[in-house]
Formats: sequence, structure tokens, C-alpha cells
Amino acid sequence: MRDLRPLFDPRSVAVLGASGDPAKWGHWVAAGALRGAHRRDVWLVNRNGGEILGHHAFRGLDELPEAPELVVIVLPAGAFEEAIEASLAADASAIVAITAGLGELGEEGKARERAAVERVRAAGAVLLGPNCLGVYDAAAELDLGSNEFTPGSLGIISQSGNLALEVSLLASQYGVGVSRFASLGNQADIDAAELVEALAADEATRVIAVYCEDFHDGRAFARAGAAALAAGKQVVLLAAGGSEPGARAAASHTGALASDSSVVAAACRAAGIQRVATPKELVDVALACLAPHRPRGRRIAIVGDGGGTGVVSADLATAAGLELPHLSEQLSAKLTAIAPTIITTNPVDLAGAGEQDFWNFERVTEAVLVSGEVDAVVFTGYFGGYSEMNEAFAERETEVARSIAAAAGRTGRPLLAQAMFWDSGPARALRAGGVPVYRDIEAVITTLAALVEQELHPGTGVADMGKTADPVRSDGYFESRELLAAAGVPFAVARRAASVEDVRAAAADLGYPVVLKALGLLHKSDAGGVALGLADDAAVAAAATDMEGRLAPEGYSVETLVDTAGGVELIVGCRRDPRFGPLVLVGLGGIYAELLRDVAVALAPAGADEVEELLRSLRGAGVLTGARGRPALAIRAAAEAAAALSRVAAAHPEIAEIEVNPLLVTPGGALGLDARIVLS
Amino acid sequence: MRDLRPLFDPRSVAVLGASGDPAKWGHWVAAGALRGAHRRDVWLVNRNGGEILGHHAFRGLDELPEAPELVVIVLPAGAFEEAIEASLAADASAIVAITAGLGELGEEGKARERAAVERVRAAGAVLLGPNCLGVYDAAAELDLGSNEFTPGSLGIISQSGNLALEVSLLASQYGVGVSRFASLGNQADIDAAELVEALAADEATRVIAVYCEDFHDGRAFARAGAAALAAGKQVVLLAAGGSEPGARAAASHTGALASDSSVVAAACRAAGIQRVATPKELVDVALACLAPHRPRGRRIAIVGDGGGTGVVSADLATAAGLELPHLSEQLSAKLTAIAPTIITTNPVDLAGAGEQDFWNFERVTEAVLVSGEVDAVVFTGYFGGYSEMNEAFAERETEVARSIAAAAGRTGRPLLAQAMFWDSGPARALRAGGVPVYRDIEAVITTLAALVEQELHPGTGVADMGKTADPVRSDGYFESRELLAAAGVPFAVARRAASVEDVRAAAADLGYPVVLKALGLLHKSDAGGVALGLADDAAVAAAATDMEGRLAPEGYSVETLVDTAGGVELIVGCRRDPRFGPLVLVGLGGIYAELLRDVAVALAPAGADEVEELLRSLRGAGVLTGARGRPALAIRAAAEAAAALSRVAAAHPEIAEIEVNPLLVTPGGALGLDARIVLS
Repeated sequence: MRDLRPLFDPRSVAVLGASGDPAKWGHWVAAGALRGAHRRDVWLVNRNGGEILGHHAFRGLDELPEAPELVVIVLPAGAFEEAIEASLAADASAIVAITAGLGELGEEGKARERAAVERVRAAGAVLLGPNCLGVYDAAAELDLGSNEFTPGSLGIISQSGNLALEVSLLASQYGVGVSRFASLGNQADIDAAELVEALAADEATRVIAVYCEDFHDGRAFARAGAAALAAGKQVVLLAAGGSEPGARAAASHTGALASDSSVVAAACRAAGIQRVATPKELVDVALACLAPHRPRGRRIAIVGDGGGTGVVSADLATAAGLELPHLSEQLSAKLTAIAPTIITTNPVDLAGAGEQDFWNFERVTEAVLVSGEVDAVVFTGYFGGYSEMNEAFAERETEVARSIAAAAGRTGRPLLAQAMFWDSGPARALRAGGVPVYRDIEAVITTLAALVEQELHPGTGVADMGKTADPVRSDGYFESRELLAAAGVPFAVARRAASVEDVRAAAADLGYPVVLKALGLLHKSDAGGVALGLADDAAVAAAATDMEGRLAPEGYSVETLVDTAGGVELIVGCRRDPRFGPLVLVGLGGIYAELLRDVAVALAPAGADEVEELLRSLRGAGVLTGARGRPALAIRAAAEAAAALSRVAAAHPEIAEIEVNPLLVTPGGALGLDARIVLS
Repeated sequence: MRDLRPLFDPRSVAVLGASGDPAKWGHWVAAGALRGAHRRDVWLVNRNGGEILGHHAFRGLDELPEAPELVVIVLPAGAFEEAIEASLAADASAIVAITAGLGELGEEGKARERAAVERVRAAGAVLLGPNCLGVYDAAAELDLGSNEFTPGSLGIISQSGNLALEVSLLASQYGVGVSRFASLGNQADIDAAELVEALAADEATRVIAVYCEDFHDGRAFARAGAAALAAGKQVVLLAAGGSEPGARAAASHTGALASDSSVVAAACRAAGIQRVATPKELVDVALACLAPHRPRGRRIAIVGDGGGTGVVSADLATAAGLELPHLSEQLSAKLTAIAPTIITTNPVDLAGAGEQDFWNFERVTEAVLVSGEVDAVVFTGYFGGYSEMNEAFAERETEVARSIAAAAGRTGRPLLAQAMFWDSGPARALRAGGVPVYRDIEAVITTLAALVEQELHPGTGVADMGKTADPVRSDGYFESRELLAAAGVPFAVARRAASVEDVRAAAADLGYPVVLKALGLLHKSDAGGVALGLADDAAVAAAATDMEGRLAPEGYSVETLVDTAGGVELIVGCRRDPRFGPLVLVGLGGIYAELLRDVAVALAPAGADEVEELLRSLRGAGVLTGARGRPALAIRAAAEAAAALSRVAAAHPEIAEIEVNPLLVTPGGALGLDARIVLS
């Protein structure tokens, strides 16, 4: 881990390309840098010299009185290399390159970036960008970008300046400010993973929000996310470009290579990174992660004073997989003792009891929280609105809000609120007390469900790729089987045969019925290169002779026919993502499953536990687990076979694709019926 | 259709139960009523007389100088009947009963309501409530409730006061006010359907937002929604209580009988009602429906100046089923001519061209809209933010916004915007010009996708129940088959048999192989009462003898064995919803389909076109339509069979459930293999 202190808290800053024109980046960056001039040297550099923003402008970095620890380059692409050289010659430790028009435009620019990075690294310096929009650190009073942020506890890493601005605006409406911001740019040197590490190490940063189009080293990113979580700092990720038009836009925007959405999801699951789809969701989830407590399970209670809001919340929560248990008789009686009109079904409806006495909001909420009957409470309704009526109400309601927040803090269980008067004094008092208060109920429910999911299915960790094994040189059928079998994938018994005569002998040796496969074909099944259930020598001879004539195969495999009745066929395979590396895929075979694309993905290598969870997450998992009176199948054996395959994929980077299709799962075990490898 | 003018625009109002206590409903309603005192007589009535809110309080309705056209009852449940009688005696045409504690508590209250409604109707009057929260009409300056609304064009019908308030608050942030509000209450007399009719007929109301827990007469509601749409007024519905905890809460809140979510969805589809799940969505969709144009197809362009926002929008749009076509070379050239730096992939990224010249926002947006290459444009990004910088920028950006809205209006294609500076001057100018401007991009995309869906799959209309036929008296197997066959459902050939000997004779007559079914059992298949593929007389005799001994059935059916290979089994049935009446359900049979509950529902009777669309909407529809190289099956024949079954269900209210399971669909046709009726 490199020290990024010179990037976020430099002792001095030089702005190379500072400008007096208020419509230019060189002006905005200079103005931002000068806001920190009371605590560090800030030098403006412009080849024309003169005066900018009331400060002397140096004609070059070589004119500065001292070495600048950080240089911001705000020059056109043509001056990039020269600026880098000048920065290194001036002994800069960190460089921020706003300069656009390099790697995002294509290979030539990428080559120029690589050469520059080589020079930067050789000098022991670090480079953010190029094509980036600057950096911000609230504690260090460093502001080198176009956006102005309110100081706070949210760290933002973004590949888009406007998106970071939108996130900060949405966060500020909930009173959440920004601790650090770093614009990713082209990630020529410093990448998203390294920035996550740096923000995780930053004291002021409590949650890390990331907008990313290109993960550069996806594994390192995931690992950094897992490490940040271990350090108590949740990473919330908005990864864009998963659709074809999205990827097209990302490529034109930053030259990004976007990853498949399911792959990003797999990495996030492994790392315990919260994944979202929009800037609003990014802020919604971050807000809950800033709160002191997390839900331990699915059971929630809804407490409010609007019947309708309660019903809507209950519907949403149920759809999101949360549970609203009936409250116990004791708890119900306790609530009725607070006010007899309270409806004690869950949702709990204070009905008139809240406006009779605002303290009833606090009494009811605390009673439900301390009961231990639920893992979280959602507070919703009119609360906050009384404060709009008169000053006395406002004071009392705010006091009650403070007390509610304190009560929630004591119980150690999360309280999340939705308030139509979301910006009222009482709402702000709840927020100040650690209760996230949202404008809309869907934000509360979606966020809560996401946190519950993470708690119940914690990241299994980001697997190391393990040692690389001796490269595989053949993609032959038997070599593939042997490689997988050695790793622990069980297969049906098979014999290699070179000729029709060999085939007949092998079949007689194995015992009928047998399966005959012609080898060396790309899609042997589609080509008519597989014959199932050959019952006797005559049938075997006829099938082999037919294949010999039609396909002239390299050879044959003669295999014991496996009874598939009562079993389910899975597809198990691995492929390789350019950013996240090897992946294991499991899916149900069969026509419905194919149509419904019922497939789940994890980073490879994956452990058997992880694969088993993957199998159980399939929509049609019931056929494996014994739903509707069917026998339960050996899901564990299937998971072990897939885990073994994933280890092979991880150890052999030369394998582009590897597949066992089908993997037959029966009540007694799992058995590979075919295997295929594609070398890259 | 009754005239509800006395409810929304009465010539005079009496508040029965007016109160001087500012914490009481009788106070709020009186204060509200008095706000209209400049245009109608308002009389406050309290049995203690005296003065309330500076006005004389009458001791009874009989003391009023004239007949009150509308009486609001704000008295406890105990005084309900007496108040109704007094109102009718005073010759009131409309009554609003705020009074709670009646039908929502159970059968006794319901009976009291029924008796009161009988009296009200006999007198030619109408009743809103009881247990309602009042009524509001902006144009008539009538305000009889606790909420204060801003006048506008949104009609609100709600079964929850707080929810209506939340909707109005959310709408007001987008500058949308309320034309009329009616609280549903227990719908003892006036129900949701009648209120939809009344709001559709109201000139000031342009979109109708409904929150409903209990639909009372669901068919009438759907019909009213379809009629409103035909009159150019979209109904947007938030129907709650679809989950078990939601239904539980609704029952405790208003005594509501909630309907299954899929049934409500079916009614909305038929009627062209937009269905949403949250108050925010209600407002988001209503906002778009207030705009002058609707999208005609799925093709959209995204225009913005933030690369990241464009990528996120593209991902969301693709996931929502919208399409982002590549722009033509001509259009692309036209955009490049506006400014060479514009990235003309779709999403279109103005990059720096917007801040160079604000008018470029207008030029680009208009060029894309007039091109005809897309059905709608989504405008997003930093626009609106320049106005925060200085006064000159604010003026120019607002002028550009006005011009963008005008351009969109001219093209006849919808423009929807998302703005992080959603409340800026330019954003308000866009809104004023008919462009819906949202805070969050998901609101834009979700709304647009919903409108496109409605346009491409317009409501098929709410079917009339048709004539009721002579009631079915027997739920016997052969009677059920005959009833369905007569309506047009084809069945496998079958013979009735009374004894083992009869069975053997029938089988010989039909020709082997046959199927044997034992009759009179509730679940004949589970009980071992079905034997398939009996190949000869010996097999038939053995199976019949076995059933005779084990099951002592009422009789037998002997049927031709149908070859099911190459076919797909469907489940087709009808059931009855207490609110929406008969429904037809179609689903895929088989284990995966059962596990995945791949079922679709429509109101019965349904036409063959409608059922065919239903079948095509199944997730596994590919097995019917010939996906992945399979043969296409006779989906039309299956649709016709299901439509025939739905006609039977609609014509026979005495049938609680009716089912053909399985209905075999082959490339050549559809054939019922079993039938079952349950009488209620």
C-alpha cells in the first residue's frame, strides 16, 4: 500500500496551467487550491506569468521557491509528457492530471499514459488521472476540483464529476457531507482499489461511495472493499455500464471497459460491498450505513400513525423479503397500556394516540425496539408535521425526536424513519441522533432489505487466485476429464477408442448399455456425434460405423450409460472476465431453465459452501432441495464438483472456458456426463 | 351516474358537531368550511349553541334558516343514525360522515351503515363515509377536512388521510396542486368507482390519483378507470394490502377486504389504469400523465452533459425494456455541426458544449426530438446548475429552458427531464412549459417505461359479465366436461362406465391404449385414481378391479390415451375474487413452472386475443412460441380454449372454481385432458 498522504494532504500545491479566465478549469482549480492557502503553500503556474486571482503566477515549476509536494496539471494533452517531466524534476510526490484526450481516446493515448506512469513510479511519485476532475479532502482543506462539497463523513470515489456532485447534493439534503472525494479518471496509475484503501484508512471517512465504470483490477477492488468493511467502513458501489448502451456510453466517456453486471454482483457479494443502481440509492444505502446499528435478521416492525402508510410499508417490506411478525401478547398489552386506541397488529398504528401525546411516539417505539421481537423498526407517518403548526408543538416534537433517537441508540437495534415532513426540526433531530430519516418509504425498505441480506449472507471473502499450475496444452476430451477428475470432479466411466473395432471391444468390456461419443468436434451433440443407450454390440457397431462415415472423428469415447431418471442436470462452468478474472457459473439445465436463464455466478476459485449457496439461490432451486414432495438431491456433492472445477479454472489462466455439462445430480451424488475446455 | 355536485360544490354547508376546541376534528372541519363562507352559507351546529370561531352556533339542524345542501357529520358513532335522520329531515342532498367506529369495526357497524344508506338513498341523497376524512374542491373553494391543499389539476381519492397528504406534499414539490380530494372511508354509499366518475367529469381535474385498500365493486372501479382514460384523464392507482401483513393492517385500519395483487394488476391492465406501489411513484407517474404527449414506442434517446449520468440512465432504461437506438449518420452529423465535441452515441453527451453555449442544450434536444428516430427524449445532467452561479447565467439558462419546453411541445414527442438542480429556475421553467422534471433518474425511467407499456399494450376493456346462464347443479366430471365442451373447450374422447365390466367394454370400443379414471374423488390423481397407458384388456381389467377395491368410486371414465410427447401442458382455470369477480388464470404445468409459479391472470370473461397475450407474457412462454429451435405450438388454440372456459365461469356465478388441468398444447392444437368444477 503506497502512501497517498501527498495526494490528499500535501504540504504544498502547484497548479500548472492556472488561468485568469473564469470559464476555465485552470481558474477553478486555482481558486480551489487558494482556499487552502492558509495552511499550505499554493503556487500558481502559467507560462505567461503575470497575476492570477490576485496572486503572482510563476512561469514554470522550476521558478518555485521550493519543491511542490503536489502538482495539478491543467494543460492540454499535447503538453502532458512535458508537464509530467517538469513535475518530477521539481520533485513532486503526487500529480493530479486533469488533462483529457489521452487513454480514453484509444491505444495511442494509453501508450502515452503507460510511458508517463513508468516515469512517475520510477520517481516514487503517484499520479491521479489523467482525464480526472480533481481531489478534495475536508480535514486537510484541500479542494482541487470544480465541485464544492460540504465537509462530512462520506468518502466519494467517482469516474464522473457530475455524478459525484449529484451524490453530494443528495447526501447534503440528509445532512451528510463529504470527507474525501477523488475523481478516478483513466486510472493510469492510482486506481479505484487503491483509492478505496486510502479512504478506508482516512479517519474522517465513515462510508465509501463509489461510482465506477471500469474496475481496472477488479479483484483488487473487491479485496479493498472487503478490507474496508473489516475496518468498519462500508463500500457502496454504483457500477455502471452493465447494459449494451451503457457500456457503449462508458467507452465513449472514459474509454472504460465495463464488466458484466452479474460479475460485479458476484464480486460485491464476496466482498460485502453494497451494490446499488442509481445515485439516489447510493445515498440511501450510505445513509443507513452511517447509522450506529445494523439489523441482525429479517424481522421488522412498522410503527406509525397513518394506516395507509403502514399498509403500503407492509406490502413493500414483504415483497422485499422482510418479515412482519405478529407481536406477542405481552408486547401488545404493553402498547395498549400506553394508549388503548393503539392498533397493535404489526404494522403498529398509533392512530390518535400520537396527537394526544407526542411522547407516545417515543413510548411505543422504545417498547417495540426493546422487546427483542424484531430486528429493526421502521418509523413512518405524520410525525414531524406537528412542528409546522406552532412553536410549542415544534419544541415538544423535537424533544420527543431526540428521545426516540436516544432510545434507539440504547437498544442496539436499528431504527429507520420515513417522514413526509423529512426536513422538519423533529426529522433533523432524529438524524442528529443517529436515525436515518428518508423522504420516501421505498428507500427505507430497499435499504433495510439490502442490509439484512448482507448480514444473513456475509461476504465469503475475495478468493486468492491460488498458485498457477503447469499450463494445460491440450483441450482434448479425455485430457479435460482427467484434469477435472484429478481436482475432484466425479465422472461416468469412459474408455478411449480409436476405431470401430476398439469401440466394440470397449463397450463389451464396460457392459451394455453404453454411450458413444465422437471426439474432436466442436459441438459433438449438435453434430450428431453422441449416441445414447446403445444396448448391444450390433447397436454399438452401427452407431460407430455411422459416425466414422459421417464425421471422421479423431477418436471415440465409450461410456457407461447413467440412469438420469430422478436426477436433475446442471450446467457448471467457468469463464474469465477481463477485469475480475475467473468466474464459476452454475445453472439448471433443461428447456425451462435455459429459457429463464436461471444461472448464478461467483468469483473462482469458490469454496463448496459458497457454491452451495449459489445453487440454493437459483430460482428453480426447489428441484434440488426437494420441493413439492420431490426427493432431495445431493446438492453438496454438486457444489463440491463445481468448487473443484473453479479451482482448476483459477489455477490455469490459459483456460478461457471450462465446462461440465451436464453435471447429473441424484439423491446419491453428482456425476459429470461431459466435459469441455477451450484454451485461450 | 348520480350527480355529486352537492358533495363537491354545495350551495350551503352545515357542520354538525362543530367545536371550539382546536384539537378536535369538529374545529378543523368548521374552520375549513368557513374558508368558503364568502361564496356559500356555512352554518355551524353544536347542541350547546354559543359561539364557535367567531360564528353563531346553532343547536340543531332544525334551527337553520334554510335547508343545508351538504351536512358534515363530526359526531361520535353513537349519534350516527340520529344525525343522518336530522340531515335528511333538513333536506340535505349530500352528507359527509367523518364519524368513525362503524363498519370498520365489524358486522354490527356494517349493518348500521346499510340501514343508514337505505334511508339516504330513499331520500335521493348521497353519503360519503362514514370513517372518512372529508372532501376538498379547489374550484368550488370547498375545504372540509384536516389537510390543506394547494389548488391544481391533480384529483386525489384516498382511503387514508395521511397518504393523501403525503401525495399532495410530494406533488407540490413539482408544482402540482390538487383539484379535488375525496376521502373514501368505509364506502357505505359512494364508493371509489363513483368518485372516479365524478373526478373524470370535473373540468379542473386532469389526472386522478387513487389510494385504495378495498375496491368495493372492483369491476365498476375498473370500468370507471377505463371511462376516465377515454375522457383523457389517466387514473393512477396505489392499491395496498396485497401482502398478508398489508391485508392484516388494512383490515384493522378501515375493515378493508384487500384483493390479491395479481387480480388488481389484471383489472388495471384491462382498464388502462396505471398501477404503482408507493406514494412517490403515484406522484411520479401522475406528473408524466399531466404532460401533453405520450411515448408511442420503446425507442428513447438520452441527452445530457454528464457522462456518468448518461451511462446510469442507459443501464436503467435497458433494464426497464426501453431501447436506445444508434442515431443515424445524418442526425449524428447534425449534432456534430452544433458543436464538434458532442459525443453522438446514444446517450448523447454534450460534454463541454453545454457550458460553452447554453443554447446548445436546446439545439441538441430539438434535433433529436424532431428526427423521428426516437419516441421520447430523456434530458439529464448538470443543466439548471449554471443558474446558481450568477444572475446572468440564471436568466439565460431559464430562457433556454423555456425554449426547450416549447420545442418539445412542437414536436409532439415527450421530453422528460431529471435534474440534480431540480428546484432551480430553469427546472421550474421546464415544468411550466409542460416538461416533467424529476429529482431522480429512476423516477423518469420507471415512469417512461410504464407509459410505453400502456401504449403498446392498451387496455382490452373491462369485460361485461355477460348473461347469467342456467345454474349448474352438478360438479360431476362428465357434467363439467360437457359444460366446457359445449362452450368450445376440446377434450380427449371419453366414455362413462359404471362397473369393471363396463370399463372393459368401453376400452375395447375406444381401442387401446386407454386411460382409466375413478370418479367422485376430490383429488383423483393423488388418491391413485388415474391409470395411464393401459395397453390391453388385461391391464384395463386389473386397473379397474384395483380401483374398485381401493376407492369404491362412483363410476369411471375411460379415455383415449393422448400422446403428450412434443406438447406442453398448461393449467387453465377460473376463480372468483370477492371484489373483482371471475378471473381466468393460465400457467405452465411441469415442475419448474410450478416452482416458479409462472401464472398470469385476467378478468373473466376474456377474449382469445387477451388470453393469447397472457400466455405470451409467461416467463416460460418460449416453450409455446418455439424458442431455441423447438416447434411452435398452437398457442391460439390454447387461448381459445381458455377464453371459452372464462366465458363459462362468467356465466355461472355459482361456480367457485373451474379448471382444465392439464390442457395439452401441441403444434396441431389444444386438448383438455381433465376437468374439475367446484360449486360454491
